[in-house]
Amino acid sequence: MTAPATILLTPGPLTTSARTRAAMMTDWGSWDSSFNRLTASVCERLVAIANGTGSHACVPLQGSGTFAVEAAIATFVPRTGKVLVLVNGAYGKRLAKICAALGRDHSVYETADDVPTTPDAVDALLGADPAITHVGLIHCETSTGILNPLPEIAAMVARHGRGLIVDAMSSFGALPIDAKTVPFEALIAASGKCLEGVPGMGFVIARADALARAEGNAASLALDLHDQHTYLQRTGQWRFTPPTHVVAALHEALLQYDEEGGLPARHARYGRNCDVLIRGLERLGLKSFLAPAIQAPIIVTVHAPRDPNYRFAEFYAAVRERGFILYPGKLTQVETFRVGCIGHVDSTDMERAVEAIADALRALAITTP
Amino acid sequence: MTAPATILLTPGPLTTSARTRAAMMTDWGSWDSSFNRLTASVCERLVAIANGTGSHACVPLQGSGTFAVEAAIATFVPRTGKVLVLVNGAYGKRLAKICAALGRDHSVYETADDVPTTPDAVDALLGADPAITHVGLIHCETSTGILNPLPEIAAMVARHGRGLIVDAMSSFGALPIDAKTVPFEALIAASGKCLEGVPGMGFVIARADALARAEGNAASLALDLHDQHTYLQRTGQWRFTPPTHVVAALHEALLQYDEEGGLPARHARYGRNCDVLIRGLERLGLKSFLAPAIQAPIIVTVHAPRDPNYRFAEFYAAVRERGFILYPGKLTQVETFRVGCIGHVDSTDMERAVEAIADALRALAITTP
Repeated sequence: MTAPATILLTPGPLTTSARTRAAMMTDWGSWDSSFNRLTASVCERLVAIANGTGSHACVPLQGSGTFAVEAAIATFVPRTGKVLVLVNGAYGKRLAKICAALGRDHSVYETADDVPTTPDAVDALLGADPAITHVGLIHCETSTGILNPLPEIAAMVARHGRGLIVDAMSSFGALPIDAKTVPFEALIAASGKCLEGVPGMGFVIARADALARAEGNAASLALDLHDQHTYLQRTGQWRFTPPTHVVAALHEALLQYDEEGGLPARHARYGRNCDVLIRGLERLGLKSFLAPAIQAPIIVTVHAPRDPNYRFAEFYAAVRERGFILYPGKLTQVETFRVGCIGHVDSTDMERAVEAIADALRALAITTP
Repeated sequence: MTAPATILLTPGPLTTSARTRAAMMTDWGSWDSSFNRLTASVCERLVAIANGTGSHACVPLQGSGTFAVEAAIATFVPRTGKVLVLVNGAYGKRLAKICAALGRDHSVYETADDVPTTPDAVDALLGADPAITHVGLIHCETSTGILNPLPEIAAMVARHGRGLIVDAMSSFGALPIDAKTVPFEALIAASGKCLEGVPGMGFVIARADALARAEGNAASLALDLHDQHTYLQRTGQWRFTPPTHVVAALHEALLQYDEEGGLPARHARYGRNCDVLIRGLERLGLKSFLAPAIQAPIIVTVHAPRDPNYRFAEFYAAVRERGFILYPGKLTQVETFRVGCIGHVDSTDMERAVEAIADALRALAITTP
């Protein structure tokens, strides 16, 4: 793919196409009907990606993905509700922190960083606590790249008659999510991840009936998705100033998403990126943290070399000099670094990234493993 | 100035320079030190514009300006606090709505849309209610363009020992605000207004001691400015994914701000824009809503022609065809429209805008007044 000066192998912000960035060269009036059409088109396309047309709505929200996660908890969980938060990484922990900040009752079920949550565990937890109204799940934990079994957990939550809120930040658009067969109340993602837009807005795909019930739950004006949705429906406009250039970039990115072949093509490209990366790193003696079966093709956590010459900051700088930006590890027990597989990059870029890593290791006299 | 296809005469999003938009052609890693330097530079420059270097900090926040206003109320007003909200337009009303949503006790003092709040009124209100801990003021009400006397009100609030929270969304960078002589706890603005960046982030200029006291006030993770500030201080990074391209555009816009001559030059240019606009419209028989003494050079509210041929939507479309995007009125009692004076536009552009308006009126056979 057309290579910019430095390629971001980070899980958002990530490398975007020149065409997506060029869409930001126009100033849009946020009150103008041409911009309203842009917003409507983006929302329709996002709902369609989740196969939610007719049953679900898209509520866009200014800010980062975390703003949209907080907005979903604040809007969909009644003030007397209780959330079971399923944790196996930093974003699950953040979800629990959001519940605490909002004053929403919650309990946490935590598994190790490399252990997906099972539907059986959810079954037992929901059976034991009838006060739980909602379950919060991270689809793909960006802190490691682990994939949780969304369809199976969603079915179990539905069997217990509870609501599911899914943080699909780093999976939406690349991993299949079918709203017609996977029951959820709300699913959250953002512009600057697998859709390959620039960061600056999140969005929530919500069941229309759940949205209708959510009036008055949020103790916030800015993060009230019911109010945001109602106003957008009535006027075609965002309630408060939208990040116009970010919206325009996302619209352009979604056109390219369709041209590439939609979700199957995006999934396949990221899958190739991930394979090339993992096999390439293995050739260098670097092992990935997760077993292949639970590794999502989004971001790869790699065990750091044990060589005392290895210091992440120096390694990062050396790889950066060679044109690629890596991501630090987020595990506390094990020394790791991370490499994203997503963005406007293909397997040739990943091969070059492996070469850059190899070259950096040689230059720093770091031996592996 | 270099004219894009259509000029936005709207109070944010507004017309930006090609150079500012070109700064969005790079993808930045949000963890990279080069991006951290960009954030630090933006914050330093914003504090300097308010003359708050050494005494004040800038806390940037993802989202629109309203997100930053809500964050300031949530962070600086203790849960047992009470806010006196000074209202003479839509943004004052929104501030009261935010207090209600957050569950913060508050009272509202409202004057007519064309009547600034006086320090004497504030004196009486604070004297009568010792429960009030904070006063919320809109510096320039974008709903009309009216200017409230910030220095005098700030002095009065300080005399009563209460905290002041200022929504300076549409004035910051164009109208002088001196943090060394105008006491406030927090002052809020955004990227896409008089600094001529693109929309997508707000920021709060806060007294360091007020920030230090604010821990634990916010019942929110995303909108907790104390947490946002602490993390930024410790790591140089935003807590959650920053709108990287918006930050880069604001940085580039701030370089141009300095090159133009800083606040005095920006103030002077907008003043000329406003004068040319008002005099030009007067020649066409169109009268502005506010008396000159209380008209800020930010946005002008104009009485709509009384001619039955006048319909705003058609008038808007006709002016738009001629290259300029106007803004609808926001008053309920009087039929008006609005024209922004801010953005990367100069008095020549305003003269051309007046000609476009004249031509549109002729084409639609609308007589004035």
